[in-house]
Amino acid sequence: MKRVLFLIFILSSLVFADTEFAEPKPSIDNPRKFVFPITKWDRKEVNHILSSVNNVMKFYGPENTEVVIVAYAQGINTLLKRRDSHIRKRVESLMTYDVEFIACGNTMRTLKIDKKDLLDDVEVVTAGIVELIERQLQGYIYIRP
Amino acid sequence: MKRVLFLIFILSSLVFADTEFAEPKPSIDNPRKFVFPITKWDRKEVNHILSSVNNVMKFYGPENTEVVIVAYAQGINTLLKRRDSHIRKRVESLMTYDVEFIACGNTMRTLKIDKKDLLDDVEVVTAGIVELIERQLQGYIYIRP
Amino acid sequence: MKRVLFLIFILSSLVFADTEFAEPKPSIDNPRKFVFPITKWDRKEVNHILSSVNNVMKFYGPENTEVVIVAYAQGINTLLKRRDSHIRKRVESLMTYDVEFIACGNTMRTLKIDKKDLLDDVEVVTAGIVELIERQLQGYIYIRP
Repeated sequence: MKRVLFLIFILSSLVFADTEFAEPKPSIDNPRKFVFPITKWDRKEVNHILSSVNNVMKFYGPENTEVVIVAYAQGINTLLKRRDSHIRKRVESLMTYDVEFIACGNTMRTLKIDKKDLLDDVEVVTAGIVELIERQLQGYIYIRP
Repeated sequence: MKRVLFLIFILSSLVFADTEFAEPKPSIDNPRKFVFPITKWDRKEVNHILSSVNNVMKFYGPENTEVVIVAYAQGINTLLKRRDSHIRKRVESLMTYDVEFIACGNTMRTLKIDKKDLLDDVEVVTAGIVELIERQLQGYIYIRP
Repeated sequence: MKRVLFLIFILSSLVFADTEFAEPKPSIDNPRKFVFPITKWDRKEVNHILSSVNNVMKFYGPENTEVVIVAYAQGINTLLKRRDSHIRKRVESLMTYDVEFIACGNTMRTLKIDKKDLLDDVEVVTAGIVELIERQLQGYIYIRP
């Protein structure tokens, strides 16, 4: 198996002049930190964002990443227990890799969503946008996938 | 009144494990600085952006924030005198809190918009996107709400 | 010609209180570096992004900028040989100014796109989103136009 993976690695490095790492290189001690917003309830877009998270973690290795997803406005539907069972499964699977999911309290008040409507382990903050801001100031890279 | 606010504060801190502040904490001397783009003329989206600005200022306190909004492409409609009286009122209300509104000169030329069509106190720059770039280099956090 | 340009400069500085440059000011030694994503195949939006790149380069001068465009998801259509001849011409024209165009390998696999379907001089990386992240860590400003 290891040999096959190595072969794939060699082959893919022949095809791609790949992304150059910035310093310090990603490692357990220097994980890459990202914060992604989900702001719309468009299943295709939500799935695209979750796939992007997957791609990022596959590329760096889950142990070398810290991923935070902040859901607000209609994007909060992503974190509801009863909305879309496929998306729910993907979210729960990412949670097992320590991806943090955060819901916007302002949005919850506006859309009359209760904490118990959210998936277990979702954190709630007062304002999703504030979370995006403070995470950036803490060195997280903000990407809208 | 102060006591009620304090009670609300205590209650909400029981419900939320809230956003952790990055260092230095927001203050009058170290205000949080943001730059938000408005690029589309979709009333719902524009209202959402203006609400986000509101939420941010309410959270940090207006005295601890510096907010810049750059309107370009169809988003420039947000800053026109005669377009949407509700949005106009919201923009003017934010201006009283020293939120800066900036219009893109390239867009104005393309869409044949004159400075006198814009709300008073709107600044005009050559290129909205350049403003977004330079503000980031000056320490403003860029968020697309 | 120089005199006319100077006159235009003076006139425009009368009209606009223009964007203030962050330090260090843009120059050949300190070029402004940007990374723009293209994620959707909406001709209007793609043209808008390419125009934004144009505006940025016109403003700073091409010699004072380093622009990278990363295409992924449906945005990769921007970089196909046979899709839209007008957009193709714009991309090729920007390439003559050393704008880098990068395609996402994950997207290519998903959409069954081969390297030979892409315009010449397009680079391919494993994951477009990783490129966006690493470029930011290398000091590129990320803007979604």
